[in-house]
Amino acid sequence: MKLKELGEFGLIDLFRKKFPAPPEAGKRIVLGLGDDCAVLKSYPKNLLLFTTDSLMERVHFDLSYFTWEDVGIKAMSANVSDIAAMGGLPLASVVSLGLPKKMEVDDTLNLYSGMDKMAKKFGFLIVGGDIFLSDKVVISVALLGEVEPKFLLKRSGAKIGDLICVTGDLGESRAGLELLQSHKKDKSAFGSTFNKDIFNKHLRPVPRLFESRELVRKLKINSMIDISDGLLGDLYHILEESCVGARLFEDKIPISKKVLKLSPFLKQKPLDYALYSGEEYELLFTVDRKDLMSLKTLNTKVSVIGEITDKALRMEMVNRYNKVRVLEKRGYVHF
Amino acid sequence: MKLKELGEFGLIDLFRKKFPAPPEAGKRIVLGLGDDCAVLKSYPKNLLLFTTDSLMERVHFDLSYFTWEDVGIKAMSANVSDIAAMGGLPLASVVSLGLPKKMEVDDTLNLYSGMDKMAKKFGFLIVGGDIFLSDKVVISVALLGEVEPKFLLKRSGAKIGDLICVTGDLGESRAGLELLQSHKKDKSAFGSTFNKDIFNKHLRPVPRLFESRELVRKLKINSMIDISDGLLGDLYHILEESCVGARLFEDKIPISKKVLKLSPFLKQKPLDYALYSGEEYELLFTVDRKDLMSLKTLNTKVSVIGEITDKALRMEMVNRYNKVRVLEKRGYVHF
Repeated sequence: MKLKELGEFGLIDLFRKKFPAPPEAGKRIVLGLGDDCAVLKSYPKNLLLFTTDSLMERVHFDLSYFTWEDVGIKAMSANVSDIAAMGGLPLASVVSLGLPKKMEVDDTLNLYSGMDKMAKKFGFLIVGGDIFLSDKVVISVALLGEVEPKFLLKRSGAKIGDLICVTGDLGESRAGLELLQSHKKDKSAFGSTFNKDIFNKHLRPVPRLFESRELVRKLKINSMIDISDGLLGDLYHILEESCVGARLFEDKIPISKKVLKLSPFLKQKPLDYALYSGEEYELLFTVDRKDLMSLKTLNTKVSVIGEITDKALRMEMVNRYNKVRVLEKRGYVHF
Repeated sequence: MKLKELGEFGLIDLFRKKFPAPPEAGKRIVLGLGDDCAVLKSYPKNLLLFTTDSLMERVHFDLSYFTWEDVGIKAMSANVSDIAAMGGLPLASVVSLGLPKKMEVDDTLNLYSGMDKMAKKFGFLIVGGDIFLSDKVVISVALLGEVEPKFLLKRSGAKIGDLICVTGDLGESRAGLELLQSHKKDKSAFGSTFNKDIFNKHLRPVPRLFESRELVRKLKINSMIDISDGLLGDLYHILEESCVGARLFEDKIPISKKVLKLSPFLKQKPLDYALYSGEEYELLFTVDRKDLMSLKTLNTKVSVIGEITDKALRMEMVNRYNKVRVLEKRGYVHF
């Protein structure tokens, strides 16, 4: 069935029926879908976190290799990652959906399912929304979260001497995108070195929310950001807000093994993917040097990749022969 | 200058520079634009309100008669109206903007200016956002508000015997749109009866936020909604959520005098505009009968237009000769 036949209110009813709120999820929700606003209980001691992020067909995703569920997952992930980057937890989300008349109702259900799955996985619900007519699919998610004041992390707190750390491995999101764009989903092209997980980092990234909570509980973190514009682009945001510089060690950058294996099929050097790949949704943070030992006891994979310097806005890279070069930020630019 | 030349981050910087936060507005804002999330102080005793609403070029607005500032005003108004409909006050907003590469930077400033003006008029700020590339302009606003638990108003509280009331006058939004569509901005067509205010209700509606606060403070309101789908469409939402019926009195419906004057230029009867005009952003509410005298002492213009009955989901209209007819809801349908 096409959306045109079901209508806006029919679609809203269908979403409510197919994706009900589990009883335990409603503790903080006084009123969910179905009124002019959702109503939530505020939590006295916490600070509120508020963010928004959008995905548009052909700009942010291409349906020749994204499933509708991937799109839903990715739309929600970007927002959860923003909350993780502040040290907080998500509380509730509202979703604006621009949908074409001719879209299949099943496709809208798969899209919503992706968002709903991510929300439930990370302990919150979609509590409101808006549906409107659009030639191309556009999804704007706004996410409300909260954080204990002592755990709040900004971009602006980096201190000279801090260790620069990053979770996980880097480079898969852009490398995966490049392979998807050049080979679509023809996996045979990559032979035995192929691992479909390399696509997942781009198609359905997992925000590092639980990891963020481990970090804020166990370490003395001074600044944090999620990698959405690329390691160097986002590091530069920390440097700008904190008025400091950074020295990175080339052999400490955690280049994804999948990217290294697939490098014969890629256009650039593996290191470049690790430095410039956007939409990684890994966490980049700086900690007091005293935390060096604590870093080794974490469940989360963390690499120490450099240190904060007093040379404001300067990013240097030290290679294995101890040669220093200055780096450019080169983040993703939309226009 | 085109957006393409300025770039995404350039535009964000320009917004921050051109529309600074007045110092007194920042009381509740710990961190505004410039990090992964905005950070707000939560207010211990209040409930949070959370809503979203979008405008898309050609679907919701036509640039042959909307200025960019009108568009910004309207995008924000719809959301403020939702908060007003719950009895609350807005706290902070995040904005997702899909903008074409070739858009003039000045136009984006006018668009943002409309949103910023409305926010400041109603005591809050834009604290975050997302900008992305789009063929057509699309604006998704998410608004966070709060309400004292004793003032929270839902659609579901209407009681049998309640008086049905509405603020202001009705019909101008759709009548104005019709005149704009047929005559564009050629005011001469309407002769001396013309009043440009009839366009404003459609182009730059004013949400009834201050009025809502007077109502919740002075009356015992049982249910409330804002008129976005038309008087009858929205009354029907109250009836559905409250499992009651309604009887309206035809000669009590506050048809706008401007609509009456311009009726020779309109396609339908003035009453039809009052009953079915969407995007009026007036408040429709039901109060205990004991409040009849209090209604007369308000600063806000309120009309008592009917009463709640026990006939679930039935809407009746009584005309001046005491004849009763059953009404259809006919709200605005997007698909």
